[in-house]
Amino acid sequence: MWRESRGEQCFVSGSRFAIVLEMNTEGIEPILSGLPFNQVISSNIGNPQQKGLDQPPITFVRQVAALMEYRELKHLAPGAFPKDVIARADELYEEIGSIGAYSHSQGVPLIRKSVADFISDRDGYPADPNHIFLTGGASAGVSLLISMLISEPMKSGVLIPIPQYPLYTATLAQHSGEPLPYHLDESDEWNTDLATIEAAIKEARNRGVVPKALVVINPGNPTGAVLEEETQRKIVQLCKTYDLVLLADEVYQANIHRPTKHFTSFKRIVREMKSDIALVSFHSISKGVSGECGRRGGYFECTNIPEDVIAMMYKMVSVGLCPPLQGQIGVDCMVRPPKIGDPSYALWKSETDTIHAALAQRTHQMVTELNKVEGVTCVDSPGALYLYPKIELSKKAVEAARKAGKEPDAFYALALLDATGICVVPGSGFGQKEGEWHYRLTCLCPGVEEYVGKLVKFHEEFSKKYPKE
Amino acid sequence: MWRESRGEQCFVSGSRFAIVLEMNTEGIEPILSGLPFNQVISSNIGNPQQKGLDQPPITFVRQVAALMEYRELKHLAPGAFPKDVIARADELYEEIGSIGAYSHSQGVPLIRKSVADFISDRDGYPADPNHIFLTGGASAGVSLLISMLISEPMKSGVLIPIPQYPLYTATLAQHSGEPLPYHLDESDEWNTDLATIEAAIKEARNRGVVPKALVVINPGNPTGAVLEEETQRKIVQLCKTYDLVLLADEVYQANIHRPTKHFTSFKRIVREMKSDIALVSFHSISKGVSGECGRRGGYFECTNIPEDVIAMMYKMVSVGLCPPLQGQIGVDCMVRPPKIGDPSYALWKSETDTIHAALAQRTHQMVTELNKVEGVTCVDSPGALYLYPKIELSKKAVEAARKAGKEPDAFYALALLDATGICVVPGSGFGQKEGEWHYRLTCLCPGVEEYVGKLVKFHEEFSKKYPKE
Repeated sequence: MWRESRGEQCFVSGSRFAIVLEMNTEGIEPILSGLPFNQVISSNIGNPQQKGLDQPPITFVRQVAALMEYRELKHLAPGAFPKDVIARADELYEEIGSIGAYSHSQGVPLIRKSVADFISDRDGYPADPNHIFLTGGASAGVSLLISMLISEPMKSGVLIPIPQYPLYTATLAQHSGEPLPYHLDESDEWNTDLATIEAAIKEARNRGVVPKALVVINPGNPTGAVLEEETQRKIVQLCKTYDLVLLADEVYQANIHRPTKHFTSFKRIVREMKSDIALVSFHSISKGVSGECGRRGGYFECTNIPEDVIAMMYKMVSVGLCPPLQGQIGVDCMVRPPKIGDPSYALWKSETDTIHAALAQRTHQMVTELNKVEGVTCVDSPGALYLYPKIELSKKAVEAARKAGKEPDAFYALALLDATGICVVPGSGFGQKEGEWHYRLTCLCPGVEEYVGKLVKFHEEFSKKYPKE
Repeated sequence: MWRESRGEQCFVSGSRFAIVLEMNTEGIEPILSGLPFNQVISSNIGNPQQKGLDQPPITFVRQVAALMEYRELKHLAPGAFPKDVIARADELYEEIGSIGAYSHSQGVPLIRKSVADFISDRDGYPADPNHIFLTGGASAGVSLLISMLISEPMKSGVLIPIPQYPLYTATLAQHSGEPLPYHLDESDEWNTDLATIEAAIKEARNRGVVPKALVVINPGNPTGAVLEEETQRKIVQLCKTYDLVLLADEVYQANIHRPTKHFTSFKRIVREMKSDIALVSFHSISKGVSGECGRRGGYFECTNIPEDVIAMMYKMVSVGLCPPLQGQIGVDCMVRPPKIGDPSYALWKSETDTIHAALAQRTHQMVTELNKVEGVTCVDSPGALYLYPKIELSKKAVEAARKAGKEPDAFYALALLDATGICVVPGSGFGQKEGEWHYRLTCLCPGVEEYVGKLVKFHEEFSKKYPKE
């Protein structure tokens, strides 16, 4: 009666725990007695505000949100809110009314206007609020786009980077689309190689699969790589040559932690090149300094998409009525933070500076320490929230894993969890070259020295237990 | 490059306005100068807290929500919150932590436990939190279930009532499933007739379509009909006979406004009958006395669904990470309202009593007045938020509509909008027998006397303009 599983297998389980990808470990915490740690550290998921991690919410966002929830607070607790918070909440209330009502299915017009202003300030090119869709997180937008791009009777494919955030393979599986993997180059800091993409396109075409779109994650997940503009221009040119829709996952655009690197949007590249390729770019309030995963907020912007397709998107999203209002308010606060001179500015600046600095410092320290370990190499990540170290596993370790019916990196990750309480995701969840093993972990933990110490110590013990010949 | 439209056509446009089904008219308000009204009344959509309508939020819900947004308010404005509100927020915070973090993909365990308690109190039979999924509104759950029920290579069908809330046809269109309509009986207060369903099943099978599930909306949308238990038992038996999954849309279960009617859940019926049919029942915070559409919250409960299917559902929902946290908190407050003796109880009771009474009074008054009009007959609706009057349209009116390229009821609805500012949905959006015409309107407006007076006056003028022979 039920359709066969179409969701991607997102789990690796079999230990005391389940290692879950991009999901809360909440509720799967074990009874810890008798284990060599007293706390599970959820490094498996980019969930900055999770219990036990250390990224607090931005006060401005939460103050505006609280005032939108309970309007009477303006009078009941006038001293609790800076004037600019009250002004923002009043402006939003004037536009939206009760946040208990459905909004426009594409998102509150005023907030889409705010997003358009943010984009044009960022890129130096105008943006049209009518081409912007507010969503319940970037994943909802990706799912919509992929569902619209997959068609019949020819098999449709979407080019996805390897390693990749498995949202893409999972969504393609749900919509019966075919993932067309292209490998990123670990030896070149996980750079994107155009020839590899072209080879994947040709290979697909030879099999009768029609490549419809190219997914680029910039900054990368799980790699943290930040694209050079020259590479971005080549990608746009390639989309033109092969008639591909460019799906630009830019949710980590605010997470850049190396001064020599900066983020350039594909929108800007496309406009600079005067290109007419179809581009959909995704952003989210779940990452960056916002870290508001639980609100479910984000947007996508359509560039060079025909109006009839946009009208169709609108019909599709209207079936789900509207994105969550508190997610939309989160988007407004992300794209319109306090400005210099506003009463909330100093606190906002100090909170966001702290988050940026902590992420940069932790990333650097973790990379440095991990690279000192024999059998571990880790590309330094200039962006996003993750590291994706490569681990050498001995023949003995691989054999032990196979005997246990596990992928060797999953076997490693489960042993790490059992020994330290640190939960990471094995590379087999993101894809990797055959015979290579990785894991992804976030750079969000507090107490980085103790934390990375545990990783190092575990690897050494694991290597002793399963030595090379 | 783009797939052909798969979203259901949800629009009727062509007037100065678009009449939009279950969508906010926000942002499509016209420049009203020169029109014979000064306000658009959005009676097209069950959106109780929309601007211009009169259902305010429940204070308890918003106080808990505000305290979850901005925890410091507990200290900054201690007097602003009753003790039970603070206790609830503390309890939720203890469980959830920051609402800026992803929760468990199936929903916060504590809140699923609250839902299970609510269900078992309601039905007298236990409910299992592991079989409950919190969702971003009922529509997200319906979409998931339909996507899982549609399979190949045989065409899959889902039985849907006519008239029906078009979520079902739209979702089936998106997932390439076939709607199998069965007509409700207007002459018997929109009752559900089993023989009609059986005929639809046989007709589908004869065409090689496999009926997979039966959708029942109880209380009905747009009809407001409330099923008798005897009919519910027959429906369960029919699902057993024809191996159908029963999808019970029970989002209006708290909207009963006739003392002689009461809501019985299909869960209770299934348990009483000791039936093993597969049942998925949907509930939402968007309707009832909650009316919190913008939060996007709801749940579904699985009964007699195999554990491997539930595991698959969990995988599917985990791709979208988690339902919005403020939607989940809305669910908690709906299923665990203040109890007698709690500091918030008196206010909660008075607010919810007012909402129930207003809806009952308005429904009664509107039905009474509409039925006085020649050419209008309206079944009195004991449940939900709507009326679905039948309108007689003269041959001249039908001809004028056809000439304008419109369905006659859409032509009527647009003329109504132009004349009065009242926005309703033509029956052709919900389905009706050939040659019959209806419209759906909500019973949510303030100033019912003036409002229904406008409807009556308009119908009389329209009938004069397009007289019978």
